Amino acid sequence: MSRRVLQGVLSSARLWGKGRQNAVGLVAVPSQRLTSSLTAPLSCTFITSHAWHNSHPTPAPSPTHHNAAGIRTADAGKEMLEITFADGNSSFFPYCWLRDNCQCPQCFDSDALCRKLTLEDWQHNDSPRSVQVEEGGRHVEVQWVSGHRSCYEAQWLQQHAFTPSARDSQRSFLAIKKELWSTEMKLPRMDYNGVMHGDKELLDFLVTLEKKGVVVLTDAPREPEAVLTIINSIGYVKPTHYGTNYPIRSKASASSLAYTDQRLGMHNDLPYFQYVPGIIFLHCITQFEGKGGENDLADGFHVADYLKQFHPTEYRILTDTPVYFWDKGVAQVKQETTEYHKIVNIPIIVEDRLSGDVVRVNNSQLRNSYLDLPPEQVTPWYAALRLFNQTVDQQSIRNKLNSGEMLVMDNTRLMHGRTGYDSALGERHMNQAYLDWDGALSRRRVLQEKLGVTLE
Amino acid sequence: MSRRVLQGVLSSARLWGKGRQNAVGLVAVPSQRLTSSLTAPLSCTFITSHAWHNSHPTPAPSPTHHNAAGIRTADAGKEMLEITFADGNSSFFPYCWLRDNCQCPQCFDSDALCRKLTLEDWQHNDSPRSVQVEEGGRHVEVQWVSGHRSCYEAQWLQQHAFTPSARDSQRSFLAIKKELWSTEMKLPRMDYNGVMHGDKELLDFLVTLEKKGVVVLTDAPREPEAVLTIINSIGYVKPTHYGTNYPIRSKASASSLAYTDQRLGMHNDLPYFQYVPGIIFLHCITQFEGKGGENDLADGFHVADYLKQFHPTEYRILTDTPVYFWDKGVAQVKQETTEYHKIVNIPIIVEDRLSGDVVRVNNSQLRNSYLDLPPEQVTPWYAALRLFNQTVDQQSIRNKLNSGEMLVMDNTRLMHGRTGYDSALGERHMNQAYLDWDGALSRRRVLQEKLGVTLE
Repeated sequence: MSRRVLQGVLSSARLWGKGRQNAVGLVAVPSQRLTSSLTAPLSCTFITSHAWHNSHPTPAPSPTHHNAAGIRTADAGKEMLEITFADGNSSFFPYCWLRDNCQCPQCFDSDALCRKLTLEDWQHNDSPRSVQVEEGGRHVEVQWVSGHRSCYEAQWLQQHAFTPSARDSQRSFLAIKKELWSTEMKLPRMDYNGVMHGDKELLDFLVTLEKKGVVVLTDAPREPEAVLTIINSIGYVKPTHYGTNYPIRSKASASSLAYTDQRLGMHNDLPYFQYVPGIIFLHCITQFEGKGGENDLADGFHVADYLKQFHPTEYRILTDTPVYFWDKGVAQVKQETTEYHKIVNIPIIVEDRLSGDVVRVNNSQLRNSYLDLPPEQVTPWYAALRLFNQTVDQQSIRNKLNSGEMLVMDNTRLMHGRTGYDSALGERHMNQAYLDWDGALSRRRVLQEKLGVTLE
Repeated sequence: MSRRVLQGVLSSARLWGKGRQNAVGLVAVPSQRLTSSLTAPLSCTFITSHAWHNSHPTPAPSPTHHNAAGIRTADAGKEMLEITFADGNSSFFPYCWLRDNCQCPQCFDSDALCRKLTLEDWQHNDSPRSVQVEEGGRHVEVQWVSGHRSCYEAQWLQQHAFTPSARDSQRSFLAIKKELWSTEMKLPRMDYNGVMHGDKELLDFLVTLEKKGVVVLTDAPREPEAVLTIINSIGYVKPTHYGTNYPIRSKASASSLAYTDQRLGMHNDLPYFQYVPGIIFLHCITQFEGKGGENDLADGFHVADYLKQFHPTEYRILTDTPVYFWDKGVAQVKQETTEYHKIVNIPIIVEDRLSGDVVRVNNSQLRNSYLDLPPEQVTPWYAALRLFNQTVDQQSIRNKLNSGEMLVMDNTRLMHGRTGYDSALGERHMNQAYLDWDGALSRRRVLQEKLGVTLE
């Protein structure tokens, strides 16, 4: 494998080499306001804004940043540099951060897109001996007391600013804001072949899946490989003890209730994995023609949000009580038969420790009988779980897939179930595989950069 | 694939069927102490303790539970049944829990090892109309007000009791207590072929890896497939944009600093994955003969523990400040070339929200320049990171792998680095692949059950 700057026109190493030759006219002016009118005539790079933008390994900045590329002033304070940009916005840049993120070839490897500098290579209290706004405000040069010299492009500084708007831009590039839904939800439907063959369509699909947690892909080829083909076009298939992909059909002596024609209650798949499958691709190869075989779907994050608002006591019980999920049996997906025994101890509703955001919802008939609680906490926990289940049912929608359709679900968020059907009356054949979010989010970001799409 | 009760002698469905025929002589005695001398002469099952134990899908109970299988008394209270066992220990069993965990074939699928009963199928306030200790204390039968009848084996109740010791047993089956280490650590070394071909050796390896976070496997075949062979004998290879396995050699225009001969600072691999690879298998196919190319290793959980104790302010900064890790480039591990752009925003030290336990430690040169913080928090964060790095270095050990050895590391916990070497003087060829903990823990539990090993 190899790695390069995407869409790179000039590598920053070349720019830097060139820049060093041109760097002249530095003046020691600590703690003094520098304006662009004071800049030296020659720059530490001759990069143009266009070339810089194309070669830069970051997302397209949001539109609010496009208008103003220049630095108006740079104020060197005790611990931070305050930069005011041409658009009037300003940001503090702590010296520690500036030193750590020097982009010169000695400090940063532009092939590996990786910091070469370690914290050992510089002093925590290093500070500027001089600060120079150069080339009409295109960049600022810092001469450090330690002797090192750094140069920062105006646009790079704007993108990496410690302002709410710059921080928001990167946050929404990391993860798109989720849109919670209830019974009003109309299932988003997209054409499988469009998504398979169009960058824009694939981006639409990934963004919708991230926002809503569910998409139906229509007109997929009715063959088991279809789930693998689409997952491989996004990331990597997640192998589990069910195999890389597996059929779901009614059969005798079923190893899972899924392999019967009985009703399946609202659940997520494999909650007994620490690394629960992120995304389910459930492909309806042949739908049952008679009554039943529909999918019920609910937004677990919405249910959590609803409980938090209207039933805070039960919500807190469900976030603060880990319970065992498990699965145990024999897998025959590799050459040799392999027993497995998966266990996880995790709450029904999982909050992020720092943000308090709900990041995962778990429910399954594969709760273990073991329950690691003082007995007096058990009955209130069951009452809370019962309320959770009732709310999931009340807030769910029902959909029957057509043969050839593929139901794609965020398995960290969605609860899904199936109405029963009579397998004596006809076949129902689904095929399923998993993809983790690391791969899906990565692909969404790559497509955003490729297509120049900024999302809130 | 199929699933069955491991080592099963009699399926519980058969036992239950038989049991129902024999169930007679129930007496309504709510809120009354029942002793084994009052039991009906015929039982709801005729299962023997031995058959029950073999057919039961749970780990071997810890030795403290082996001694006493019987129920002495059962006291039906308002919300719970209090059972006193023959060994004098007692536990409360909430009625909700008993009803939810009824093991009869109507409520529990013994093929799928899965609860069939949903919460909708029973009332939250269902309670016993009668409770009967039967067959000399071998089991207790509950006749519910709702009409359902349940029967619970004494040993099953002991294992699932809400007592500290029963809860501890299951907790250590879930996860073995970690043993933190510092510079006194002698690297555990085990024979690769022994681990590959012996259940006991494989269990030893997995338990040691879980406890210590690191094991060196010796005398592995010096071929790239060796990492895949051993991972596939445990679980499933984790695919990433680096491939299922990949060589680490010095080369020009390296896409990662790992692919140079430079020193690598202490880090964990791929911290920019939400699902960071759980376990690294780093196989030394050919070691560099000259100076350098050693591995530095430190226990990140010990470092966290040390900081928590001696530098609580810095510890709290490191647990409470998410920072961006990222990786961006082009992978060529699939048929088509695929760009990737992974980002995660996560603290250096990750605590579990509920237990406060450290569950993951992250550090890498692939911290992004983006930092989502108010500027005044930046300098203290750098000071804390510097202290973390210094502590990692101070508490590290150094080891040079021999050709053929494989360094196996818990990548959620260990920090590892490499001393530089001069690639002009000779070759150094490593090969590497990843396994997630879900697979490794599952295999450890399966082997424990197979070999009858109980661990604290």
